[in-house]
Amino acid sequence: MKHHAALLTLFLAVVASGQQGPGSKPAMSNLMNAEYPRVEANGRVTFRLLAPKASKVQLAGAVAATPVDMERSDNGAWSVTIPPPAPGFHYYWFLVDGLQVNDPSSDTYFGYGRPTSGIDLPMAGEDFYFPKDVPHGQVRMHWYLSKTTGEWRRAMVYTPPGYDLNTRTRYPVLYLQHGAGEDETGWTKQGHANFIIDSLLAQKKAKPFIVVMDKGYAYRVGERPQTGARPAGATRQPGVLTASTFESVITDDLIPSVDKTFRTLTDRGHRAMAGLSMGSMQTLQITLRNLDKFSWIGLFSGATVNGDLDTGYDGVLKNADEFNKRVHLLWIGAGTTETRLMDALKTSDELLTKRGVKHVIFTSEGTAHEWHSWRRHLNDFVPRLFQ
Amino acid sequence: MKHHAALLTLFLAVVASGQQGPGSKPAMSNLMNAEYPRVEANGRVTFRLLAPKASKVQLAGAVAATPVDMERSDNGAWSVTIPPPAPGFHYYWFLVDGLQVNDPSSDTYFGYGRPTSGIDLPMAGEDFYFPKDVPHGQVRMHWYLSKTTGEWRRAMVYTPPGYDLNTRTRYPVLYLQHGAGEDETGWTKQGHANFIIDSLLAQKKAKPFIVVMDKGYAYRVGERPQTGARPAGATRQPGVLTASTFESVITDDLIPSVDKTFRTLTDRGHRAMAGLSMGSMQTLQITLRNLDKFSWIGLFSGATVNGDLDTGYDGVLKNADEFNKRVHLLWIGAGTTETRLMDALKTSDELLTKRGVKHVIFTSEGTAHEWHSWRRHLNDFVPRLFQ
Repeated sequence: MKHHAALLTLFLAVVASGQQGPGSKPAMSNLMNAEYPRVEANGRVTFRLLAPKASKVQLAGAVAATPVDMERSDNGAWSVTIPPPAPGFHYYWFLVDGLQVNDPSSDTYFGYGRPTSGIDLPMAGEDFYFPKDVPHGQVRMHWYLSKTTGEWRRAMVYTPPGYDLNTRTRYPVLYLQHGAGEDETGWTKQGHANFIIDSLLAQKKAKPFIVVMDKGYAYRVGERPQTGARPAGATRQPGVLTASTFESVITDDLIPSVDKTFRTLTDRGHRAMAGLSMGSMQTLQITLRNLDKFSWIGLFSGATVNGDLDTGYDGVLKNADEFNKRVHLLWIGAGTTETRLMDALKTSDELLTKRGVKHVIFTSEGTAHEWHSWRRHLNDFVPRLFQ
Repeated sequence: MKHHAALLTLFLAVVASGQQGPGSKPAMSNLMNAEYPRVEANGRVTFRLLAPKASKVQLAGAVAATPVDMERSDNGAWSVTIPPPAPGFHYYWFLVDGLQVNDPSSDTYFGYGRPTSGIDLPMAGEDFYFPKDVPHGQVRMHWYLSKTTGEWRRAMVYTPPGYDLNTRTRYPVLYLQHGAGEDETGWTKQGHANFIIDSLLAQKKAKPFIVVMDKGYAYRVGERPQTGARPAGATRQPGVLTASTFESVITDDLIPSVDKTFRTLTDRGHRAMAGLSMGSMQTLQITLRNLDKFSWIGLFSGATVNGDLDTGYDGVLKNADEFNKRVHLLWIGAGTTETRLMDALKTSDELLTKRGVKHVIFTSEGTAHEWHSWRRHLNDFVPRLFQ
């Protein structure tokens, strides 16, 4: 009888949960064994939090334009089912009586300056960013002492498959930056950069290269960090190039350390920089101020080229022929639902075309200012690199 | 005037916070720029959470034997100052009206099966686990396809300084496991294993070797994962050795993959295994069942050797001379405040001594079942390895 009672309780609990829509299954970003969030076959997503004593619980973040009220069930679990969000990667959290709380059922990712829950929703028919049964490169934590900041810093370094076997081969390097509030773990954890590149290499769509991913924050010794993530070297003023502490870290500390530790090709012809959002602004600033060090440029969902090219950008874009000779790739992209950015992209395209500056414009269909756009950006950018 | 008003507001805000004790400063585990938790010169720690609408907020986890009520200030910030906790690493969280919530001001660490806040309190005069200005090894993410589980798994692999330069050198390997609820990131993030080994190598107190850190959970294809962290291959029944899915992952998948990818010495004389807590039980099980593969054993705060050595442990400890010839190191440790474990350690020591089984007993003075014990364990264990 005890056994039957337990079974009955279990059965009732399953029925009571009630929220499991047709063909729903746990999201791929859930922590081990967690049943929620659940994604239905039709794309709707159900979020759930057990908070019996809360008065009000809301779902917030990139899955909801404004916080969405969740409903309390008798057992104290709050839940809500939302219409299909855009596929891709979305940060989110709960507001429990106003307090921002991560979902204990989802993995966290460094975003908004702290570990933040995320949900990764697959895009039908698209699997280029998943690990395949192909040779895998490694992602290495590389520690280096920064003279600029006086601290040990950690960069993540992707080495391509075969790096340890081909001990006489030297490789080009891509410096790849995250967005505001994120850190050096973003491009591999949220972005799956390593798996994307592994697969491109296996298909011979790209040449093997090294990727260096640092955190985009830097403060000189004694300099007081700003509250929150200060976008070092990021400015939205068109055409104005400014020195930054992060630029010094890259040029004075990181590049020398990487070139000393890894088998790199150290000339400008074999060094690229790209970044997303804040990272794209840093990229534009740092590459254009250091064209003796970089010749491949990727701007993902952020910086564009506009304003007066005769006087702006320290004049490096004034002479198109000269710029085309020096810069092997100027790549600018955005997701098509990043409306304002799409306008800026169009303006950039027209301006650069009119001036005769070679460039590539890429748009990611139906994606927003989130990591799935940038996975696609990387997937398009990489095959054009170092060719 | 505006400027003065802003300054005054700032001044009042500092005064109002009120909780900053004499000589207090942000804990070293705080996220960038976070002012709390704060540690006073006398060791007291103040925790703080802004939760204006909460009715009750408590501090819980390893910093408090039972949840401690926090006090609400007028601005809705809850805080509490606790007597000096034992130095070392402690997981903790807040209970906001009963809901377990991480501290947005502290970094999180994978513990209790999910990202969990932690505070790292320095031990006066002890700095062996901090990064020094010495050559640093790398920590690499190594992906491998497990036939046992049918999934891509990720192990963290420490390669010593010089690994990429000495391309003809092959290295011994230590397999190093975390505790229940933790994962493959624990030994480097909480444990600082890489910095500890870097410094021992720089002081020539250890021979260079590779460390492989996997997650200690494994389920065969189609096997339903248990809720929470199932301690695969961990049993507290003295002397009973049992096969486990995790053992298959280690012996059938991980070791072959590591030996193929890294320049390892592949004989049993150059392979060690150690682990903490649940990981120590897995270590005892897996090494004693696979003495053709392992000859160095480290048991950190968990497994001990007891019971009937004639019949237990599949008889491998029956003949002390033979065991002493086969096993180069049997190392068992605990923190002195792990009271019950200290008793088991004493029993083990007496039993092994009486039987003539060579072993090392290590105790970490004044530390508990937490990572500072295990940092010290590793620091004692490593110089004895592969000698």
